[in-house]
Amino acid sequence: MCARPIELCPLPPSERYEHWMRVALEQARAAALAGEVPVGAVVVRGEELLAQAHERKIELSDPTAHAEVLALRAAARAYGDWRLEDCALFVTLEPCPMCAGAILLARVPLVVYGAPNLKFGAVTTHIELFAYPRWNHSVQHVGGILAEECGELLRNFFVERRRHEE
Amino acid sequence: MCARPIELCPLPPSERYEHWMRVALEQARAAALAGEVPVGAVVVRGEELLAQAHERKIELSDPTAHAEVLALRAAARAYGDWRLEDCALFVTLEPCPMCAGAILLARVPLVVYGAPNLKFGAVTTHIELFAYPRWNHSVQHVGGILAEECGELLRNFFVERRRHEE
Repeated sequence: MCARPIELCPLPPSERYEHWMRVALEQARAAALAGEVPVGAVVVRGEELLAQAHERKIELSDPTAHAEVLALRAAARAYGDWRLEDCALFVTLEPCPMCAGAILLARVPLVVYGAPNLKFGAVTTHIELFAYPRWNHSVQHVGGILAEECGELLRNFFVERRRHEE
Repeated sequence: MCARPIELCPLPPSERYEHWMRVALEQARAAALAGEVPVGAVVVRGEELLAQAHERKIELSDPTAHAEVLALRAAARAYGDWRLEDCALFVTLEPCPMCAGAILLARVPLVVYGAPNLKFGAVTTHIELFAYPRWNHSVQHVGGILAEECGELLRNFFVERRRHEE
């Protein structure tokens, strides 16, 4: 959690988690339409949407162009500071090691995600990167918000892709 | 290691590790001159230098602008493919979780680094991200190449910075 007093740390309340996840889901749908893996992310500060992004790995020929990294970069640019100490990140899929690491580096205090990442999850599924006690920053995380909808989008995308490959 | 036969997998031989680390060190020195944490990285394919970069977190207001991430992005752009399956990454400091995760995602088969990362090392110092057996890619890693020179540059930078802060 943000170490500052709560009135100075405008993290969105849990009643707003589904709202922000729906915004991230719109991004994920835009990714699918572009032929990219349908994952979307938003960075918010209180009620303010700082940045939204979806995976663009193929479009940009960029192995790091995951939704979370693109959203963090855009938010930090908008904010004029690489430290996003009072922002929350919402993402439709559990972050991978790269994205969980980027969240730690950006000092984001809260991550809310949708579906578990069975292949590469670094919050609870494969490793628990945020649970390691010796980083200089700690991250609160909540998973399973609109998990069914987030996961179905991914499953449909991969079924469709396999069909095209056959 | 690259799964392809050795003649199709042009990783640099160990006799060239110090040469490429010196190129990465030049990048690290350029970072220090720009007031950024002095870490430099290069991506090579056989004897070809595909990309070189140094930390630019402050300049770009970008928490993800570590040397490795910038070098991987530039190499993938130059290569026209996000998969860097026959490239090696040289970096003056042991990668952090974000950078080690990015290396896995880019399918880089070999990472050679200089100094250990006492604060955030994700190869051997704090966690061993590459050792986890269930990722879909494996990374060979060699540490300690010109470690003294790489580490001294970092120590001098932080001593100097503290002096300015006093």
